[in-house]
Amino acid sequence: MRTIEWDDDRDCIAMVDQTKLPSEYTTYHAETIDQLIESIRRLRVRGAPALGAAGAFGVALATRRNEAATFETYVDAVAADADAVASARPTAVNLSREVGTVLDELRACSSISEARARTLAAAKDIADADVERNRRLGAHGATLLDDGARVMTHCNAGALATVDWGTALGVVYSAQEDGKTVSVIANETRPLNQGSRITTVELQERSVDVTLIPDNASGLCMQEGMVDALVVGADRIVLDGGEQFGDQGVVFNKIGTYKQAVLATRHDVPVVVAAPHSTVDTERSADEVEIEQRDPDELREIYGTQNAPPETDVYNPAFDPTPMELVDYLVTETGVYEPPLDRAAFESAADRAAV
Amino acid sequence: MRTIEWDDDRDCIAMVDQTKLPSEYTTYHAETIDQLIESIRRLRVRGAPALGAAGAFGVALATRRNEAATFETYVDAVAADADAVASARPTAVNLSREVGTVLDELRACSSISEARARTLAAAKDIADADVERNRRLGAHGATLLDDGARVMTHCNAGALATVDWGTALGVVYSAQEDGKTVSVIANETRPLNQGSRITTVELQERSVDVTLIPDNASGLCMQEGMVDALVVGADRIVLDGGEQFGDQGVVFNKIGTYKQAVLATRHDVPVVVAAPHSTVDTERSADEVEIEQRDPDELREIYGTQNAPPETDVYNPAFDPTPMELVDYLVTETGVYEPPLDRAAFESAADRAAV
Repeated sequence: MRTIEWDDDRDCIAMVDQTKLPSEYTTYHAETIDQLIESIRRLRVRGAPALGAAGAFGVALATRRNEAATFETYVDAVAADADAVASARPTAVNLSREVGTVLDELRACSSISEARARTLAAAKDIADADVERNRRLGAHGATLLDDGARVMTHCNAGALATVDWGTALGVVYSAQEDGKTVSVIANETRPLNQGSRITTVELQERSVDVTLIPDNASGLCMQEGMVDALVVGADRIVLDGGEQFGDQGVVFNKIGTYKQAVLATRHDVPVVVAAPHSTVDTERSADEVEIEQRDPDELREIYGTQNAPPETDVYNPAFDPTPMELVDYLVTETGVYEPPLDRAAFESAADRAAV
Repeated sequence: MRTIEWDDDRDCIAMVDQTKLPSEYTTYHAETIDQLIESIRRLRVRGAPALGAAGAFGVALATRRNEAATFETYVDAVAADADAVASARPTAVNLSREVGTVLDELRACSSISEARARTLAAAKDIADADVERNRRLGAHGATLLDDGARVMTHCNAGALATVDWGTALGVVYSAQEDGKTVSVIANETRPLNQGSRITTVELQERSVDVTLIPDNASGLCMQEGMVDALVVGADRIVLDGGEQFGDQGVVFNKIGTYKQAVLATRHDVPVVVAAPHSTVDTERSADEVEIEQRDPDELREIYGTQNAPPETDVYNPAFDPTPMELVDYLVTETGVYEPPLDRAAFESAADRAAV
């Protein structure tokens, strides 16, 4: 099944319950708006593209659970539910954006039955478009991998962060679909362990050979010649590197990506960043990007057990900047780009992708 | 108190109970040989120099707990206890070496009372010598740190891995004793978390400002100019780098050290390796050093909670090789050396240190 989808039989949202990973791979059905909101808050579903689909399906769910005397009061009730869904994780841009897209669809309707049909169709389109985009990205990226390629990845830029297929791991799945055998070394990715908890699970689900390593071992793996390519996703790509990084731009991704990229470059391992054009921020320079600091308790405790003295000072940044000079290939749904980017060509491809 | 010492009042061994860290900083008294063996096995005491002292005090303890009709059968009984202590952790060279040193002392005696006095004095000398050596090493290393220096360290090469003072952290304590203010960034050091569980605790005990980071964040810290020196210990230093590393030699240390050294070098942060001459292996080349693979469950579970699917393949090497080209300063009890090492001068200093 997809990470999140509409269950036509039960007329509700179905999702892989990521709070149960890595112990169980199970489906959770959100039958009510409250269940959906709780699922988003508790990270049953996570990852920007998957959250976009959750928001879209949320509006469709709201159209089916509300009744009202007039269409006007019906629309108000659905919109109130939609707002609640959109604010379940306030910093998730995709979530509120796709809630907005489907609400616009609702407002163009004139009856409850029309609203129910059109919003669900719009939500399914949004989910399908994500998968389609990832498949195109994957196909472009797969051209970079030879048969037998051994890929190292960091964090989880996989099917479980999107509606399906993923970005960095989508490259692996596309290569596999092309008949190539590809194996993966998954960095654990402290402090939230997305590599050990999520990446391992989805690769095993798709019969891709995966070996888990502590983040500290990636340098030794490269020294020992165990890695043919480093393939990672991106949280945000900034084309203007600002004062620190110059005019080639910067890739912001999960903390530790920078270290992997430096080591890969030292060992002549190609660095591949796989991300949709929607990740590219053309408005800001790197100087204007603030690096989110996360809860110190993510280090002080692990799975509820004390890992450091309770009051220990902690520096726990969520991501780091990798200068584009360290990136060998940037793969999007429109193709493979080799930095330094021809900015005009890259931006016009982005414009076409946005249509 | 020291990490391990003789408690004259209770006539037994006292040690910091490292199995209780980071939650509690408590003392454990080993009153019997069985309690000492259990303490070594359960890692109440760990670290090569501290285990050496544990072995030495273990023989002294055995001389006090045994009685016998003749001195000859008494020596046999003590030797049997000593063998049991020496094999509590079979790969710990210091443990069996110092057990042997004190047993030799016992064999030069001719009465139980003489044996009890001389073995305890010898064990105390071994413990004192470790502290003295670390203090000399620390004093040399401290010359490399300015007032206000911000040191990054990896794993725990501190007081709690030795009888007292430590090696990498001994450099910090000596600088502090010289009136300098030094702060430390401690890498968590997955998968066994010595940085978060042990290094934080001992620095806090000695009023050194410490900030814990996930291993993944060390590159960002260096990018942001937060680090003035990387100071680490060494498990084994090999002067012949073999085929892969050439004639400058290699430092084998906790997994991840190589990554930190590469990043430090990129950001012009001096790399300081602090280790006694006894760490230098002049017999083997790097090609002959086998890297220990540890239990996969160290990654699959954390503190008893599932961290990855149970059957996941894991690559879990205990240490990695840092080529001496990346080391700016090698600090031992005889001084500060700047690689490339003048091998003859370094080895003659080692010979003097061994006397």
